[in-house]
Amino acid sequence: MRAAIMIKAALFDVFGTCVDWRSGVTDFVRPFLLDRGLNSNLAEQIADDWRKLYDPSMERVRSGERPYVKLNIIQRENLDTVLDGIGIAPRFDDHARNQLNLAWEHLPAWSDTNDALMQLKNLMPIAACSNGSQSMMERLAAYADLPWSMICGADTGQNFKPHPDVYLKSCQALRTEPAETVMVACHADDLDAAAALGLRTAYFPRPREWGSVDFEPEPRSGRFDFTSATFSTLITDIVKHR
Amino acid sequence: MRAAIMIKAALFDVFGTCVDWRSGVTDFVRPFLLDRGLNSNLAEQIADDWRKLYDPSMERVRSGERPYVKLNIIQRENLDTVLDGIGIAPRFDDHARNQLNLAWEHLPAWSDTNDALMQLKNLMPIAACSNGSQSMMERLAAYADLPWSMICGADTGQNFKPHPDVYLKSCQALRTEPAETVMVACHADDLDAAAALGLRTAYFPRPREWGSVDFEPEPRSGRFDFTSATFSTLITDIVKHR
Repeated sequence: MRAAIMIKAALFDVFGTCVDWRSGVTDFVRPFLLDRGLNSNLAEQIADDWRKLYDPSMERVRSGERPYVKLNIIQRENLDTVLDGIGIAPRFDDHARNQLNLAWEHLPAWSDTNDALMQLKNLMPIAACSNGSQSMMERLAAYADLPWSMICGADTGQNFKPHPDVYLKSCQALRTEPAETVMVACHADDLDAAAALGLRTAYFPRPREWGSVDFEPEPRSGRFDFTSATFSTLITDIVKHR
Repeated sequence: MRAAIMIKAALFDVFGTCVDWRSGVTDFVRPFLLDRGLNSNLAEQIADDWRKLYDPSMERVRSGERPYVKLNIIQRENLDTVLDGIGIAPRFDDHARNQLNLAWEHLPAWSDTNDALMQLKNLMPIAACSNGSQSMMERLAAYADLPWSMICGADTGQNFKPHPDVYLKSCQALRTEPAETVMVACHADDLDAAAALGLRTAYFPRPREWGSVDFEPEPRSGRFDFTSATFSTLITDIVKHR
């Protein structure tokens, strides 16, 4: 770590980094399947298929093909595609689909998240910097007890990560320079985009994000300002540089 | 009160309604005067003069004469005018003025604010809807322990209250309909603007906002959806309509 680093605020990725979206979506979807006499094992497939459509949909906005639209709208559109793909679309009316869409606001925090966020919040502003909309982040914070100082991210940047506007306008909203602001995530591409704009970066792995499979290889040493095996030691390292 | 009212989220004015800006600015400014051998009684005059320039400055933005600019920038500009007007401008260099400008982020909550906000936050999203910028509101929340679910307001609307965009875009950020959203304030004009857009309104007086003088007459009965003598009973009334 460079000695000159002075951190004044922290931005956090949320889905995967702070909350376990796969367990959360699966648990939320399962009773809807059981109510309809469908195999409850489809819940994991719905979660994974839904998550995989998320990035291509955002890319249409990032590329300028589509104006900015909040992620809850995109997720609702993609749910139609997911249910069609699995062949169970006729079993879910509009009302049920709108209810299912709330899955992304009912996700459990990983067991180490709340302590880590509270520890840092006592020392500096901590802000959500997610591709989820502000209202999704507010509902999720209430559900998972995430003590955000502010909610930044996609709505603030009117675009989706890794578009530069999301990181830079989030720093502007916090009133901190990029070099004083650390982006915390378990996804290397999110951090690479932040680093390219001058933000500081903090990486730790969430090997269970996709269930039993670790999709992301460990980044090489030195790629990020802070790298740690656990959320708690990562926060301890950041705190030393405030 | 109309029986059909169903409140799902609450927006709060902050300066005056939640925090005591006049005591806060006065207390923050006083040591700067004493350090320079100036009469510390000037602190009240600085607070009042500064506050009085605030609305005309915002009007230039609301009228379209000037593009949206965050309130911390406007307050810094107005501080120059205030110090000039009192004849003490030469005693404050740029650094001192930048420090003085932080007064608006170091304001005490009124003694009943925190309990009222926490009570409501357990039941619905509560959001700051101030003309202060998000970063001012974040710093003030950390100082005065205001447990916002979200920070909406001027930055969200890219304009200043009572411009309609501030209220409507704050509702959009919360993902609640105006008719499900209550604006809480001690200023009748703020609430009249919200009511004209279909928001619900909740009024209670802060007779000490301007020190010993109550600038605002009590609004007539029936003008707002909720009216109460105290913050605590106002919140109790709102809670009955969720």
